[in-house]
Amino acid sequence: MFKTIEYVDDTVRMLDQTKLPLEKTYIDYKTIEEVGGAIKGMVIRGAPAIGVAAAMGMSLGAESIQAEDFDSFFSKWEVMGNKLGQARPTAVNLAWAITRMKKVAQDNKNLSIPELKSRLKSEAQTICVQDIEACKEMGNFGQTLISSGSRVLTHCNAGALATAGFGTALGVIRAAVNHGKDIKVFANETRPFLQGARLTAWELNEDNINVELITDNMCGFFMSKNEIDAAVVGADRIAGNGDVANKIGTYMVAVMAARHKIPFYVAAPISTLDLTLASGEEIPIEERSSDEVAHINGKRISPEGVTARHPAFDITPNDLVTAIITDKGIAYPPYTESLKELASKL
Amino acid sequence: MFKTIEYVDDTVRMLDQTKLPLEKTYIDYKTIEEVGGAIKGMVIRGAPAIGVAAAMGMSLGAESIQAEDFDSFFSKWEVMGNKLGQARPTAVNLAWAITRMKKVAQDNKNLSIPELKSRLKSEAQTICVQDIEACKEMGNFGQTLISSGSRVLTHCNAGALATAGFGTALGVIRAAVNHGKDIKVFANETRPFLQGARLTAWELNEDNINVELITDNMCGFFMSKNEIDAAVVGADRIAGNGDVANKIGTYMVAVMAARHKIPFYVAAPISTLDLTLASGEEIPIEERSSDEVAHINGKRISPEGVTARHPAFDITPNDLVTAIITDKGIAYPPYTESLKELASKL
Repeated sequence: MFKTIEYVDDTVRMLDQTKLPLEKTYIDYKTIEEVGGAIKGMVIRGAPAIGVAAAMGMSLGAESIQAEDFDSFFSKWEVMGNKLGQARPTAVNLAWAITRMKKVAQDNKNLSIPELKSRLKSEAQTICVQDIEACKEMGNFGQTLISSGSRVLTHCNAGALATAGFGTALGVIRAAVNHGKDIKVFANETRPFLQGARLTAWELNEDNINVELITDNMCGFFMSKNEIDAAVVGADRIAGNGDVANKIGTYMVAVMAARHKIPFYVAAPISTLDLTLASGEEIPIEERSSDEVAHINGKRISPEGVTARHPAFDITPNDLVTAIITDKGIAYPPYTESLKELASKL
Repeated sequence: MFKTIEYVDDTVRMLDQTKLPLEKTYIDYKTIEEVGGAIKGMVIRGAPAIGVAAAMGMSLGAESIQAEDFDSFFSKWEVMGNKLGQARPTAVNLAWAITRMKKVAQDNKNLSIPELKSRLKSEAQTICVQDIEACKEMGNFGQTLISSGSRVLTHCNAGALATAGFGTALGVIRAAVNHGKDIKVFANETRPFLQGARLTAWELNEDNINVELITDNMCGFFMSKNEIDAAVVGADRIAGNGDVANKIGTYMVAVMAARHKIPFYVAAPISTLDLTLASGEEIPIEERSSDEVAHINGKRISPEGVTARHPAFDITPNDLVTAIITDKGIAYPPYTESLKELASKL
């Protein structure tokens, strides 16, 4: 098995997801700035994994600060955190992790600076451990929705690679398999970054889970042929009303699922909830470089002079979401109430 | 400007569409078997262009036959035609062109064999000329549906490259532009073969028509942002009830258009109609090699050992089709009546 991210001694080590599946290489990071670059460049991606990386990055940042007192430490550290928070705009877990780390610092301002740094490092490691635990909880709740024999569509990679381990959407699938259920996965390749073809196919194959690759424009065909029984995806941010921001293309999967009366499930930890937002319209959508659309494997696929667009996420409205699987339980519509109730369990 | 296909002396010359947009190369074919290989290998593709290529291939086949009398000629030629007819199963224009060529032979059985060969060659050239004329007719009818300022989504390539020239769906766009209308095109890249990124973007750019490339999973996002006003696609076969077989992914575009109350138009010559089929369920769907999904530019994108699926077409049910634009006029629902009426104008 692989580790998506780990924090040993003074080093944050990440599996380089831009190189998978052809190369399995790790990169070591020693500074918060490098971790920000890794998030921006998608060496690590997936909302929960971004949260874990951000917490570890905050710890690296703390270690680098020379300060005599808390206020001096905190003001320098906050500047670093603000910059890290801008690495990617859509996944709320980035801000969530930075906020959590800052709260731990505030709560421990009486410690000496070396003690505080140690406390922050331990908090980052705890966030990593808790993320895996949350995925396993999600898996246990979610697998009850998936019957044996199901053929499950997923989009992007909401797997072990998108978290500290086990996965959100793929955690539900892993838990179902662990419960002895016979599951087949259809993986949308997920252009332009090909997370499905490169990452989901790879990690399910490593786990000997039956996975078949399709292009993003095929799921309607397979639904019309009754070859898909359910769809499970992750989320980058969920608004208070249950609108879901997730990888571009998720909305189309949800619309197709609704047309074919196939359940559409979202699996995400409570940390992905953003109850400060009333609806998905308020979620910022990252627009990435059009070069990532116009090139594949470094080779141009479209003519010079033709522009491309690259919104990296879309919003799936809550009425298309059958249930939201969290680490605190499963939320059903109306989400404004059910999500608030689950969040209060923290 | 380029020529998709032409027939000069004893040579059928095709623009190699597998190499576009990076290379603009032509390939010369001298035998019917080579033309069959070009169709199968997608050097030429698009239902109307396949029809033209098949007619020219049939002429090359006729030229190669040594025979003293019509019956001997025809029986050898029919065997060749049957084999050519199997090159690709979904586009009905392949069978349509072979049938038309055979009828011309039967109608001219009194000619000497050299005269007959000459008559068949001229018929193939006529089919090519008529295909361009049909596209222009379609364009004139279809452009009335597109108002100036429209942002039009298209899928795959139903352009000059998919026909002898001018195009079906892109013919409608060209005609609108020629009428002085301000049109912006969104081109779905159209995985796995990338006809949109490689061919549609290329030929519209060559014509200075405003085109922007998106991945196939983005059109829902842009529709939800009110950035798309209409969708226009081609067809590989249209059943008597108006169900449309077209490039994989078309069905999802149609579902998204219906959800967002955006008109969804299909442009195709009458030769793409198959009134022998009551519904789209009877249209054979070609399943191509999964290698075409698992590799891009010859490089593997998914791990070894993971299988992929590759249905090359899907069926859009007639209730999602706002209108079918043909060279004989525009058909509206109910299509069982309107298509029959247009077909009777031949």
